[in-house]
Amino acid sequence: MDTILPSAAYKPTARSRVKRLPKRGAYDHATVHAVLDAGLIGHVGYAIDGQPFVTPTAYWREGTRLYWHGSSASRMLRHLEGGVPACLAATHLDGLVLSRSAFHHSINYRSVMAFGVARLVSDPGEKAAVLDAFVDRLYPGRRDEVRPPTAQELKATKVIVMPIDEASAKIRAAGPGEDEEDYAIPCWAGVIPVRQAVGEAVPDVRLAPGTMRPQHIDLYRDGAALDAVLSRYAGVQVGT
Amino acid sequence: MDTILPSAAYKPTARSRVKRLPKRGAYDHATVHAVLDAGLIGHVGYAIDGQPFVTPTAYWREGTRLYWHGSSASRMLRHLEGGVPACLAATHLDGLVLSRSAFHHSINYRSVMAFGVARLVSDPGEKAAVLDAFVDRLYPGRRDEVRPPTAQELKATKVIVMPIDEASAKIRAAGPGEDEEDYAIPCWAGVIPVRQAVGEAVPDVRLAPGTMRPQHIDLYRDGAALDAVLSRYAGVQVGT
Repeated sequence: MDTILPSAAYKPTARSRVKRLPKRGAYDHATVHAVLDAGLIGHVGYAIDGQPFVTPTAYWREGTRLYWHGSSASRMLRHLEGGVPACLAATHLDGLVLSRSAFHHSINYRSVMAFGVARLVSDPGEKAAVLDAFVDRLYPGRRDEVRPPTAQELKATKVIVMPIDEASAKIRAAGPGEDEEDYAIPCWAGVIPVRQAVGEAVPDVRLAPGTMRPQHIDLYRDGAALDAVLSRYAGVQVGT
Repeated sequence: MDTILPSAAYKPTARSRVKRLPKRGAYDHATVHAVLDAGLIGHVGYAIDGQPFVTPTAYWREGTRLYWHGSSASRMLRHLEGGVPACLAATHLDGLVLSRSAFHHSINYRSVMAFGVARLVSDPGEKAAVLDAFVDRLYPGRRDEVRPPTAQELKATKVIVMPIDEASAKIRAAGPGEDEEDYAIPCWAGVIPVRQAVGEAVPDVRLAPGTMRPQHIDLYRDGAALDAVLSRYAGVQVGT
């Protein structure tokens, strides 16, 4: 688990400062990292010859570094490995907010935009360790049960690291914000909560009879909130 | 509902063709639009002076056009209104795939990357109609119950349209893809399903006593899958 100084924060500049509704913005490590650690899929942005690309990818965090990985054939990873400016956004949809006016309809969410220069993790030992940490981040202890990657599999995988230069969190968690006079409108208003929910695990069709459900997926129970599971496991990462 | 020719498809080029695992890629309108219509939050990518930005935003589709909106103060919207290349990605996380080898761990997902030139919807009538359609897309019929936007509210809102020039869908929906020899490893393997689930609607604290839960949020029932609700309502959009 990280040692977080309560005062540690990313320093906002024009790039990351939340301009629209600044009261929803936060830059402290605790808030930014909590939003990141509750998520699994991020969207990485990069530009090639002025053409923007946005690629969904699984990411993970260690300290103030973000990691993601993929095939060595991936366009995104081929582009990013050289060390280029990138942006990773992670977003949780928490609710639909229904207001008495069309204008004040909204969304409850937690999101982070993180900026940095992405580069390839080229050291083979570091790469293997980082990939191990990824499996362990999702399923603590599982790396000791599965077949480790072969040299060829490691070669086929690229890992990208992006030290976070700047990051901002933006959070809305409230009911409808009405104009006072609109409360008189006889229309239903409120919040429809949304969350990413885990379902009952489906064993592989060729699972050997008698194979037990492992302890390292214990929190992924039917009905569990994925963000809560990921946050819990992020706090028990091996090696941090 | 759209009239979709079964053969209608986006034409892939180097920009949108799925290079990694091409069997997971699709370009036909039916597949691409189904993934888009099942979602609410997209991630829009754009570059300013070479710096990529990725902004989460609610989007909606009409025909082969994507729309999103926001405050006139938004950096993203100020940048996009002039007509610039953009990319919108929409992603559904459907499951965690646990393999007997570290390498073959994966994710089940449905995603779309859509490319086009984003521009401002500047005609006031078109803008008002498009915003109406957005509320109706989420809550069919609700626009007749809420207070419509004032001239000042419309002025404070920007709407962006991006005709889709190219788009690709990428879908994984399967159990672990193991190397044959790995089936002997005595390790649990399978899929942990994930979905965005709706919770019980929370009425606003100042809701007038006796206000009924409206018919236009009927499908947003506790436990419903958000993607299924959005897909159903997309099929009954008023005016399409």
